[in-house]
Amino acid sequence: MVQGETVIRVRYQETDQMGVAYHANYLVWFELGRTELMRRLGLPYLEFEENDLFLPVIKATCEYKAPARYDDELRVITRLEKLHAVRLTFTYEVRRQGTLLARGCTEHAVVNKKGRPVVLKKWSPSLWERLCNAVES
Amino acid sequence: MVQGETVIRVRYQETDQMGVAYHANYLVWFELGRTELMRRLGLPYLEFEENDLFLPVIKATCEYKAPARYDDELRVITRLEKLHAVRLTFTYEVRRQGTLLARGCTEHAVVNKKGRPVVLKKWSPSLWERLCNAVES
Amino acid sequence: MVQGETVIRVRYQETDQMGVAYHANYLVWFELGRTELMRRLGLPYLEFEENDLFLPVIKATCEYKAPARYDDELRVITRLEKLHAVRLTFTYEVRRQGTLLARGCTEHAVVNKKGRPVVLKKWSPSLWERLCNAVES
Amino acid sequence: MVQGETVIRVRYQETDQMGVAYHANYLVWFELGRTELMRRLGLPYLEFEENDLFLPVIKATCEYKAPARYDDELRVITRLEKLHAVRLTFTYEVRRQGTLLARGCTEHAVVNKKGRPVVLKKWSPSLWERLCNAVES
Repeated sequence: MVQGETVIRVRYQETDQMGVAYHANYLVWFELGRTELMRRLGLPYLEFEENDLFLPVIKATCEYKAPARYDDELRVITRLEKLHAVRLTFTYEVRRQGTLLARGCTEHAVVNKKGRPVVLKKWSPSLWERLCNAVES
Repeated sequence: MVQGETVIRVRYQETDQMGVAYHANYLVWFELGRTELMRRLGLPYLEFEENDLFLPVIKATCEYKAPARYDDELRVITRLEKLHAVRLTFTYEVRRQGTLLARGCTEHAVVNKKGRPVVLKKWSPSLWERLCNAVES
Repeated sequence: MVQGETVIRVRYQETDQMGVAYHANYLVWFELGRTELMRRLGLPYLEFEENDLFLPVIKATCEYKAPARYDDELRVITRLEKLHAVRLTFTYEVRRQGTLLARGCTEHAVVNKKGRPVVLKKWSPSLWERLCNAVES
Repeated sequence: MVQGETVIRVRYQETDQMGVAYHANYLVWFELGRTELMRRLGLPYLEFEENDLFLPVIKATCEYKAPARYDDELRVITRLEKLHAVRLTFTYEVRRQGTLLARGCTEHAVVNKKGRPVVLKKWSPSLWERLCNAVES
């Protein structure tokens, strides 16, 4: 299975008065992981949108195991978990060195600018094939 | 069951280039709903922290049904769903007039400043009782 | 001079580990003040964009006098300060009851979707007149 | 003059419905530039706070010359411009390859946890000396 890995540093802006990274930021970090995985698959998300293809999030889940703190260097490990005709699922782990801080999942619809579902396989067989390989490999 | 309702307006800052509210903001809106529900129960979250009691999020889930747009007036409807010795669960709905835009859930640990679990019932029987009433009523 | 006033509450997400509202949020609060002032003038910003008119920020300044804290209720007082052919200037004060917390200023270009300057007076004489009244009155 | 350089990529979350990076994010990027400059000077900001020393922003300014877009790779170039007994000034440039996108400035007080001014030179002569070198060199 192809996986992407992105390194981020916790920003001061991302901390809250509990002294840890605010929980909603993990969804933003997942987005960074997804972006890098797509780039690594040769499918920059930017090109999706240039081709009138959008991947809005339809479900997001995150389990928080241990807090991240300011200036921590974190790894976001991303996998393309499932691939349906008009839906994709990614999974994520956020780690500080050996420690798992959080684990999550996002499901995405595949739609055009008007929000109508797009059947990826028809829309671009070559893109579909590359995504299939990313899941199976 | 006691429920809180908060009205928010989508900020320009909360939109993204898809022209809709970015998905991570819903977790922030859930926080606003939670804050207002706690206030309505006579338990402002501010007082929790002043008493060295914290409610970090240990799990968050959100399902997105329809997009929210800039300047939309939204209602966040919040319920205290479950109450355990050292854990709370809230559920949320985000609505624009009659339309359900998103539905979600957050689970919280009850800890002190050092991150150690606090048994609410022992820590403050009166607080515990009010929370129990909020769930049962 | 017409002025707008918006009441906001500091969100937990807006705090940082110093225990105060992170400084960049004030620019977001200024945006909320601007939005409400425009609405009060009968010129909702939403309608600007629907008419292919955009007001990107070209300069922003903020002076911080005293910190805002979680759950503080703040007033953002906004004025349309200057009006040029292709530029607008707003000024802002952020207050907690009697106390001035911050004072700032944003300058905006008036452009179309392609980023080209739009001469407001020509584009919409009636809009121009209402804005003039807002400054002079 | 010592200067720091940080490379960032514009996040999807940082875009708005105008299709460009929302203006308040530049203040966050300035923070990243400042963090890296401090680290390069051998003075990680984390250590400041561990020593009960804080550098709250008391003034921020940003001029926007050209928009940044999703996935753009940007350089934030940071300089320690001025050094007073109880105040520091940093300047910033945000560039995409050769193009200047924005230019800004932040002023910081030097305070302890209670918000009282700290005279850096007295508080830590060695830190003061390193900062002086950073400005003069």
